[in-house]
Amino acid sequence: MLDTELYGGVEAGGTKFICAVASNPPNLINETHFGTTTPYQTLEKVCEFFSPYLKDGGLKSIGIASFGPVDVDVDSPTYGYITTTPKPHWENTDILGTLKKKLGIPVAFHHDVSASAVGEYKWGASRGTDPSLYITIGTGIGGGYLINGKPHTGLSVLEMGHVSVPHDLNIDSFSGNCPYHKDCFEGLASGPAIENRLGRPAETLVDSDSFWKIEAEYIAHALANYIFTLSPRIIVIGGGVMQRTFLYTEIREKVQEFLNNYLKFDVLLEGIDQYIVPPSLGKYSGVLGAISMAMDLHKTISL
Amino acid sequence: MLDTELYGGVEAGGTKFICAVASNPPNLINETHFGTTTPYQTLEKVCEFFSPYLKDGGLKSIGIASFGPVDVDVDSPTYGYITTTPKPHWENTDILGTLKKKLGIPVAFHHDVSASAVGEYKWGASRGTDPSLYITIGTGIGGGYLINGKPHTGLSVLEMGHVSVPHDLNIDSFSGNCPYHKDCFEGLASGPAIENRLGRPAETLVDSDSFWKIEAEYIAHALANYIFTLSPRIIVIGGGVMQRTFLYTEIREKVQEFLNNYLKFDVLLEGIDQYIVPPSLGKYSGVLGAISMAMDLHKTISL
Repeated sequence: MLDTELYGGVEAGGTKFICAVASNPPNLINETHFGTTTPYQTLEKVCEFFSPYLKDGGLKSIGIASFGPVDVDVDSPTYGYITTTPKPHWENTDILGTLKKKLGIPVAFHHDVSASAVGEYKWGASRGTDPSLYITIGTGIGGGYLINGKPHTGLSVLEMGHVSVPHDLNIDSFSGNCPYHKDCFEGLASGPAIENRLGRPAETLVDSDSFWKIEAEYIAHALANYIFTLSPRIIVIGGGVMQRTFLYTEIREKVQEFLNNYLKFDVLLEGIDQYIVPPSLGKYSGVLGAISMAMDLHKTISL
Repeated sequence: MLDTELYGGVEAGGTKFICAVASNPPNLINETHFGTTTPYQTLEKVCEFFSPYLKDGGLKSIGIASFGPVDVDVDSPTYGYITTTPKPHWENTDILGTLKKKLGIPVAFHHDVSASAVGEYKWGASRGTDPSLYITIGTGIGGGYLINGKPHTGLSVLEMGHVSVPHDLNIDSFSGNCPYHKDCFEGLASGPAIENRLGRPAETLVDSDSFWKIEAEYIAHALANYIFTLSPRIIVIGGGVMQRTFLYTEIREKVQEFLNNYLKFDVLLEGIDQYIVPPSLGKYSGVLGAISMAMDLHKTISL
């Protein structure tokens, strides 16, 4: 047995995969990324990456943080599958089962947003704060809610990007681009919604564009609703849209305006700068979350 | 020691108190109710009711289901208090401490809506279904979300009556009556909101009044948001407004319209009659929830 136990993480995204190996305490010792092609090709590359770490028994387990929709119900016959995705070739892909069989080590599995939440809770901006909420605002909008550091699921994984938010057509005449709900939160405020509305990529908007005030309002309305419904002790917001760091200040102010002193807690009043925060692991939230899940799985099995 | 162990429940409402004693398995053996006056007078009456059951050691513990806002954080110095209520005399009332001292037995404490959720989960419409959501729509609007049968709390108790819902002023010109958020869910759809809007008590509206369609839409919008955010496996809706039982059908149809097949689960499609349901304990949800909490507390202490 090696001195150092190793753990793997896979962030399985719709566009690219990130794979990493880390020791515990976490120290990234290798990482790679490659484009997402067919399941067969892509999962082969995952196995190639991990293969050198398998031989000597150093790699104890891996975790997968997968794009969705995914089945995370351990009692379900399709646990560990990507289910009804419109992404070509990936519908009904048994990503967990395939990697477990090919690698021959224990594999943990969860939704990518939940895994990012876990990464930030374990080593990042929400470290040890319970319960915690992680929201990503980018190509899509999604959220992971952790209780005692574990992603909460019920009937399904949480789908909080699809909540409705107040939409005043006199201020914003865009009808929304969610194929299911038109002007839900995601349909109004995701990156593609911004591009659809304005006719050019969100990345090309200047910081002074008047649209950002509207964007901050949608995000703040959704956050206020999450606060009333989930009562998190911290909210981390990541994703491409949040690269516009000035949004954090506007969102915090709007959340306070919408809550209007109804909840008298320091963190919502003077402390809001520490309550609504950016991720601190950057692009590694997801893969580090997967590694954390892998470590937990190994610990559980070893008990 | 008596053959039968007894447990007490108090539903401490802003208008009236209900007290009950039950054996386990639950069989209500006595109950009473009286108007809420000052804390001193009212809590004296509570003690008078339970006093005969104390003498022989038969009464093991009681549970309190209290109107709010309440402090349910067991680590807080004001745990068991009614806190910032506008109700005269009741601000900062240590209801838990007072009854514990006067009765000399263990006392469980939670918010009344959470206790109703517990009652329905233990013996009512949501029996054993996890996670479960209970919503009350009456004088106020509130919700209790149970995970493994326990009320979930975070930074505070959940305040999901105050979420925002889409409000089209062209259809409903009422600006809302929530003192904090104007047209939040409670500000638009509670009993007093209906009365404020229409100039007469909600009870006087005929079933065919066109307003009920608008009411059902607000409720359905809120439920759809709760489903996306909390993913409960069942939703029980109680409270005075829901005495209009035709609302259940309209709400179910609207929830399906708003979800628009995004979540492909039987309970949300063909099974929705069993997913959005009325309480089955009627006016006893709260006090039976309090009794269930008392039983659990006794069990925990006896371990």
